Amino acid sequence: MSKLNWGMIGGGEGSQIGPAHRLGAQADGRFVMAAGALDADPARGRDYAQRLGVAADRAYGDWREMLAAERDRPDRIDLVTVATPNNTHFEITKAFLEAGFHVLCEKPMTMTVAEGEEIVRLARDTGRICAVNYGYSAYPMVRQMKAMVAAGELGAIRCVVANFSHGHHAAGDDADNPRVRWRYDPAQAGVSGQMADCGIHALHLASFILGDEVRTLSADFASTVPGRVLEDDAMVNFRTESGTVGRLWTSTIALGRQHGLDIQVFGEKAGLRWASEQPNQVYLHRLGGRVEIMEKGEAGLTDEAQRLSRVPIAHPEGFPLAIANIYLDLANRIAGAPAGHLPSAEDGLRSMAAVHAAVASAKADGAWVDARPPMFR
Amino acid sequence: MSKLNWGMIGGGEGSQIGPAHRLGAQADGRFVMAAGALDADPARGRDYAQRLGVAADRAYGDWREMLAAERDRPDRIDLVTVATPNNTHFEITKAFLEAGFHVLCEKPMTMTVAEGEEIVRLARDTGRICAVNYGYSAYPMVRQMKAMVAAGELGAIRCVVANFSHGHHAAGDDADNPRVRWRYDPAQAGVSGQMADCGIHALHLASFILGDEVRTLSADFASTVPGRVLEDDAMVNFRTESGTVGRLWTSTIALGRQHGLDIQVFGEKAGLRWASEQPNQVYLHRLGGRVEIMEKGEAGLTDEAQRLSRVPIAHPEGFPLAIANIYLDLANRIAGAPAGHLPSAEDGLRSMAAVHAAVASAKADGAWVDARPPMFR
Amino acid sequence: MSKLNWGMIGGGEGSQIGPAHRLGAQADGRFVMAAGALDADPARGRDYAQRLGVAADRAYGDWREMLAAERDRPDRIDLVTVATPNNTHFEITKAFLEAGFHVLCEKPMTMTVAEGEEIVRLARDTGRICAVNYGYSAYPMVRQMKAMVAAGELGAIRCVVANFSHGHHAAGDDADNPRVRWRYDPAQAGVSGQMADCGIHALHLASFILGDEVRTLSADFASTVPGRVLEDDAMVNFRTESGTVGRLWTSTIALGRQHGLDIQVFGEKAGLRWASEQPNQVYLHRLGGRVEIMEKGEAGLTDEAQRLSRVPIAHPEGFPLAIANIYLDLANRIAGAPAGHLPSAEDGLRSMAAVHAAVASAKADGAWVDARPPMFR
Amino acid sequence: MSKLNWGMIGGGEGSQIGPAHRLGAQADGRFVMAAGALDADPARGRDYAQRLGVAADRAYGDWREMLAAERDRPDRIDLVTVATPNNTHFEITKAFLEAGFHVLCEKPMTMTVAEGEEIVRLARDTGRICAVNYGYSAYPMVRQMKAMVAAGELGAIRCVVANFSHGHHAAGDDADNPRVRWRYDPAQAGVSGQMADCGIHALHLASFILGDEVRTLSADFASTVPGRVLEDDAMVNFRTESGTVGRLWTSTIALGRQHGLDIQVFGEKAGLRWASEQPNQVYLHRLGGRVEIMEKGEAGLTDEAQRLSRVPIAHPEGFPLAIANIYLDLANRIAGAPAGHLPSAEDGLRSMAAVHAAVASAKADGAWVDARPPMFR
Ligand SMILES: NC(=O)c1ccc[n+]([C@@H]2O[C@H](COP(=O)([O-])OP(=O)(O)OC[C@H]3O[C@@H](n4cnc5c(N)ncnc54)[C@H](O)[C@@H]3O)[C@@H](O)[C@H]2O)c1
Ligand SMILES: NC(=O)c1ccc[n+]([C@@H]2O[C@H](COP(=O)([O-])OP(=O)(O)OC[C@H]3O[C@@H](n4cnc5c(N)ncnc54)[C@H](O)[C@@H]3O)[C@@H](O)[C@H]2O)c1
Ligand SMILES: NC(=O)c1ccc[n+]([C@@H]2O[C@H](COP(=O)([O-])OP(=O)(O)OC[C@H]3O[C@@H](n4cnc5c(N)ncnc54)[C@H](O)[C@@H]3O)[C@@H](O)[C@H]2O)c1
Ligand SMILES: NC(=O)c1ccc[n+]([C@@H]2O[C@H](COP(=O)([O-])OP(=O)(O)OC[C@H]3O[C@@H](n4cnc5c(N)ncnc54)[C@H](O)[C@@H]3O)[C@@H](O)[C@H]2O)c1
Repeated sequence: MSKLNWGMIGGGEGSQIGPAHRLGAQADGRFVMAAGALDADPARGRDYAQRLGVAADRAYGDWREMLAAERDRPDRIDLVTVATPNNTHFEITKAFLEAGFHVLCEKPMTMTVAEGEEIVRLARDTGRICAVNYGYSAYPMVRQMKAMVAAGELGAIRCVVANFSHGHHAAGDDADNPRVRWRYDPAQAGVSGQMADCGIHALHLASFILGDEVRTLSADFASTVPGRVLEDDAMVNFRTESGTVGRLWTSTIALGRQHGLDIQVFGEKAGLRWASEQPNQVYLHRLGGRVEIMEKGEAGLTDEAQRLSRVPIAHPEGFPLAIANIYLDLANRIAGAPAGHLPSAEDGLRSMAAVHAAVASAKADGAWVDARPPMFR
Repeated sequence: MSKLNWGMIGGGEGSQIGPAHRLGAQADGRFVMAAGALDADPARGRDYAQRLGVAADRAYGDWREMLAAERDRPDRIDLVTVATPNNTHFEITKAFLEAGFHVLCEKPMTMTVAEGEEIVRLARDTGRICAVNYGYSAYPMVRQMKAMVAAGELGAIRCVVANFSHGHHAAGDDADNPRVRWRYDPAQAGVSGQMADCGIHALHLASFILGDEVRTLSADFASTVPGRVLEDDAMVNFRTESGTVGRLWTSTIALGRQHGLDIQVFGEKAGLRWASEQPNQVYLHRLGGRVEIMEKGEAGLTDEAQRLSRVPIAHPEGFPLAIANIYLDLANRIAGAPAGHLPSAEDGLRSMAAVHAAVASAKADGAWVDARPPMFR
Repeated sequence: MSKLNWGMIGGGEGSQIGPAHRLGAQADGRFVMAAGALDADPARGRDYAQRLGVAADRAYGDWREMLAAERDRPDRIDLVTVATPNNTHFEITKAFLEAGFHVLCEKPMTMTVAEGEEIVRLARDTGRICAVNYGYSAYPMVRQMKAMVAAGELGAIRCVVANFSHGHHAAGDDADNPRVRWRYDPAQAGVSGQMADCGIHALHLASFILGDEVRTLSADFASTVPGRVLEDDAMVNFRTESGTVGRLWTSTIALGRQHGLDIQVFGEKAGLRWASEQPNQVYLHRLGGRVEIMEKGEAGLTDEAQRLSRVPIAHPEGFPLAIANIYLDLANRIAGAPAGHLPSAEDGLRSMAAVHAAVASAKADGAWVDARPPMFR
Repeated sequence: MSKLNWGMIGGGEGSQIGPAHRLGAQADGRFVMAAGALDADPARGRDYAQRLGVAADRAYGDWREMLAAERDRPDRIDLVTVATPNNTHFEITKAFLEAGFHVLCEKPMTMTVAEGEEIVRLARDTGRICAVNYGYSAYPMVRQMKAMVAAGELGAIRCVVANFSHGHHAAGDDADNPRVRWRYDPAQAGVSGQMADCGIHALHLASFILGDEVRTLSADFASTVPGRVLEDDAMVNFRTESGTVGRLWTSTIALGRQHGLDIQVFGEKAGLRWASEQPNQVYLHRLGGRVEIMEKGEAGLTDEAQRLSRVPIAHPEGFPLAIANIYLDLANRIAGAPAGHLPSAEDGLRSMAAVHAAVASAKADGAWVDARPPMFR
């Protein structure tokens, strides 16, 4: 199996998500980190890339330089990851897709619904992969839940409850800290705070596991820390295309919750519960039976859940390996090999539509609104 | 300390809540079970009362007979507990209050807001105790949380999240089972299903711990099991008098949750989490600190939390002893001794107003409505 | 059902175990607290008994006075509980048995094996009940485990692991605190510290659940806090009559463990796990299956487990209700009604033999010794 | 940073531990998998290596061929991992050390104590790294515990309790399954079953965290599944050089435990608890305080714990990243960069000495024996 070349934009030294991408891309030995424009500061970015093993001539100062140089190399990168701040995702993703590169874009894919639709069209037109990093969907036990729902093991799904609530922005006097402040400032973050940042992970997870998209929603937003304009706590009620009831709570002031992403699915025959802080277990309750603890790697899971689990039962696997699963299937897809599900530009677009719908609903005192992107109505 | 005489209406053999009342009333040796009209079937009621040690002449066939007989005895009961089905609470409670008895009424106290207001006025006019059995509020660690909030240990409260969701009515084919069906039938259950049955416990707990009442709310109701008219899954967003954001989810189809009552309180300085299935612990997260596990009975708790904990640290205490705490303070109050908080007719009324508000909001697509009883506006 | 008269020795105001006995004896309304010699200080004892509702003439200053007075009353007590310090259990229990009273004695029943044998013989000769308060054995889910083992659901039992380790005596500078010091002082505590105090609960639980007695053992004792003579940390390996391997760890310096009593049973077909801090659940793992969470009160438990569970599924029940189960069956037994298992003088004797065997083994560097009382060899 | 060349012996397709090594070695991009002799079957090994990206001329049929070829290459491997069955570790490790390669050897490093001493001498003489894959010691929170003990945060350590007990060999009828049978057959597995396989992980962890070695021990072994010669359940009591009391239970028949590796450390000032199934948390109980939940990545951890945590707080990291931490420091050490602790040949030797001591003690009915390798006495 020959190695693929991988490039990265953003994810510089000290960034939050950069390491997860590097571990994820390299763990399976399918990608070699060949190029990068890692930092807002060109010099820092070039230096860090080289320290990470990128050749000097491919350690770029910015993404435009990288695009220009990579485009014409015979050994050009096979995949680019976009892990820069949100408001740059659209233009970078667009430019690389247009130049014929496969892209893995961080969430949120775009700032507006219109941009989202443009990316979807572009991905379709160019035939390039445009994946969005909804990495939680690549945990083996999340795939297992999806498979169980699809196989009808839960019967008709009545209700899904998804939360992504943590307490890491609870510090009021942190409100002036620039790393925190931009997130609640419409000028930088756009129309939404926590819903766009974390809520969309929970929403994607719900749609993904159910195999069913959000159709309408009603939202209640609150900015609980004085000085914040955008929401730091939000509740969204929704209905899916097939009528399932949805409840989604997302917060950044929930002291006591660390990662705080969890999901419960209730069907007519069984219920499931999963939490990202213990990603290797699913709690299954079949009607009339007992709660059973399903374990990653146990006998009888679907092939997909087994394939994406890399070490034997009960050895914990965490977030970087979920990201590695995304990269594994990107490598497979690029190589033309069989691959599993990849979160797509369509998913990225749907998230944006739901965020904008939630903002509109919250402004209209919780009125129910259509949550679908115009192009999917 | 001389013993008080106690009588019970409802709670017959095989009833759900009857045993908790008997254990709770007798555990401290303050009440003697002296009279009872325990069953819808007079003969069964008389027989069972006698098997429980009630003298034959005070083992009544129905509550009217009991009222008539007890009213004039010199050793008449000091307290009557009403643990019959919901739609009888109002008339029985009213009749006993009017006759000068102290009453502990099961929740929901009444079926309508107007009835609730009438009971509140009657309790005030007669000077009798009319308590409502919000027993969860008598757990030592719930009292501890309330005290911490009151003492400002959490700072201003930003958000409270309370759930009471279980899966015990998830069986679709159980929908015809009379023990389940009546709960979703407006003719028998009134305007609301799960919100009136369990949601009000979570709502009371939130108000109780916060020391702050619900002012407005917006609700989303769903009847997920075919054939049900009333809601079996509900989400209520609310705001308290002081502006705290509230979120309440209650469900009966949540397979995998057993008791499913839990509460999280998020303040500017700390967060708390408590779940009724592990009632002896509270998780405390102070801003900038670690999550700490508080234990019932540990050194440094408030006097109230210590008083209501009956066995040393780490010996678990459960629901019957929470009910015993209610009875302990009823005994104290009746005896004129110092007593702690007792959930009151005002609390029962507020619950009814909130239930009716939630029903109205749900019908109006989640419009925000006033949740207060008219007499408290 | 006429009420039984109950008397108590020890368990005065502020005592550790007194409240659990009073809650347990009274909760079901089967016993009336009719007499007591509650305190080492006669005046305090008389006063407290009266505050608890005992008539003045039956609020005794000491147990001899109580014995003399009660012996000849027509309404004499039906049962006496002995909850005084360990070194008084033997003489009080002996005296009351000889006078024809039924006795519930706190653990350890005696200080020596010979005393234990004497009590066993006396109970047999007098035909009186002599129960020992191994209250954990009366939890519904402990009874369920015993029933499952007896029914062969686990197949042959290979290994049992029982721990009772907490950290409440970890404070080195507490070593001079009289409430702690006596426990490690041979003059007051006898031959053993933590093994006699807590280890015997774990050992009783193991034998009880297995229906199989300890035959031989090997022990390793440590006195980890400077100044202590008796052990504060002990490990005992044992073999039962039927050859099951046993492991028992008991400690008082295990900071981080609160109550710390738990048991795991491993059979050829399944394993069980139970912990006293969450007494309402048992974790069951059938070979080739998943871990299942059994819940107190769920459908399908044995009649005995159902009978001893007093409130519906998922409402937690704790230690005082386990003690109430002991009293419930004492009442039943005294009344000649069908009753469940009661921990007996034989159990109390076996505990003493095991403690003395462990002390001997530890002194002999872990040599394997016979753990049975001479009269049962 | 230029990449290092890495070779692997064993860990072929379908092997248990192979994937963890590949993920661990590659995740940071410091090693390129350059050579391998992956399988007992030469053809399968060559094929699989090539599918993993190894060049055809470095995809070897067996380790002797690999040694012969690599020894003289200018781009020869910088590190070889030995992940073959236990009885081959000694000769392979010896041969590669003698040829001047750095080695990471799987546990147990050797079959006998004499072999272990030989490897230790060889590593010293050649100056090559000989690390042993005690990967659990590289979890960030394990390093944090070690640092806290070293800094005296727990005061003098009184007791350590380490378990590695699972139920994966509980199936009696699996006793003939060759993958299981060899482990209990002295001809293939040597003197010990589960103690040598898993017990040594727990023992290493205890020594590592304490910074204190085992001096004497007493063991109780059992072969609970009929037909097994070697132990499948063992209890070891030990004392460290500084007198700390140790307790170690290891089992393969513990149905209900999945991974089952956990450790508790009790000092005079605090206690710690960690379990490998939730490796990102440590429970800390300071004397007189509450149990606190420490989180991987939280502020205030030691630099070492922070360095080895790769993704932000509350994103779980699992076993493959612990292995990656071993490889990261191997890369650093080879490159002459600052590196953290690496489990060493000395550790591997001590494990063997302890295993042999435990076997001897168990045979001598639990007699206390010296657990140190002769060369360290
Ligand atoms: N999928 C997930 O679970 C997840 C988790 C965290 C963050 N994210 C997303 O990842 C993105 C990055 O977030 P983060 O938390 O790592 O941010 P961060 O602020 O920690 O790091 C951003 C990095 O991008 C670099 N950068 C900024 N502008 C750049 C430019 N124009 N060209 C090149 N590099 C540039 C910065 O120098 C920095 O190194 C965001 O879109 C965020 O929403 C996703
Ligand atoms: N506070 C709590 O936590 C809690 C928990 C469960 C139930 N409850 C409430 O307790 C009440 C009873 O609920 P339950 O679950 O025990 O019901 P149930 O149906 O199990 O038992 C009701 C009992 O009342 C008797 N009864 C009915 N009508 C009567 C009458 N007119 N006179 C005398 N007895 C009569 C019945 O014979 C039966 O014994 C309800 O209002 C319910 O909402 C409260
Ligand atoms: N079964 C259990 O789970 C459990 C739990 C705790 C204690 N215990 C046992 O209960 C017994 C009491 O323990 P405790 O922790 O409550 O002790 P404690 O020291 O807290 O209380 C002992 C009580 O006995 C009274 N007393 C002492 N001597 C007396 C005498 N001669 N006559 C009358 N009263 C006397 C004291 O005044 C005090 O009120 C002990 O044997 C102990 O082992 C059992
Ligand atoms: N550190 C840990 O946590 C951990 C965990 C599991 C296993 N291990 C150790 O790893 C080693 C391997 O265990 P496993 O469970 O992966 O075993 P396994 O039987 O699953 O795999 C062994 C692999 O080695 C190959 N092999 C056998 N002989 C060979 C030879 N002479 N040359 C080349 N390849 C050969 C086999 O073909 C197979 O691919 C053992 O020593 C075991 O104790 C360590």
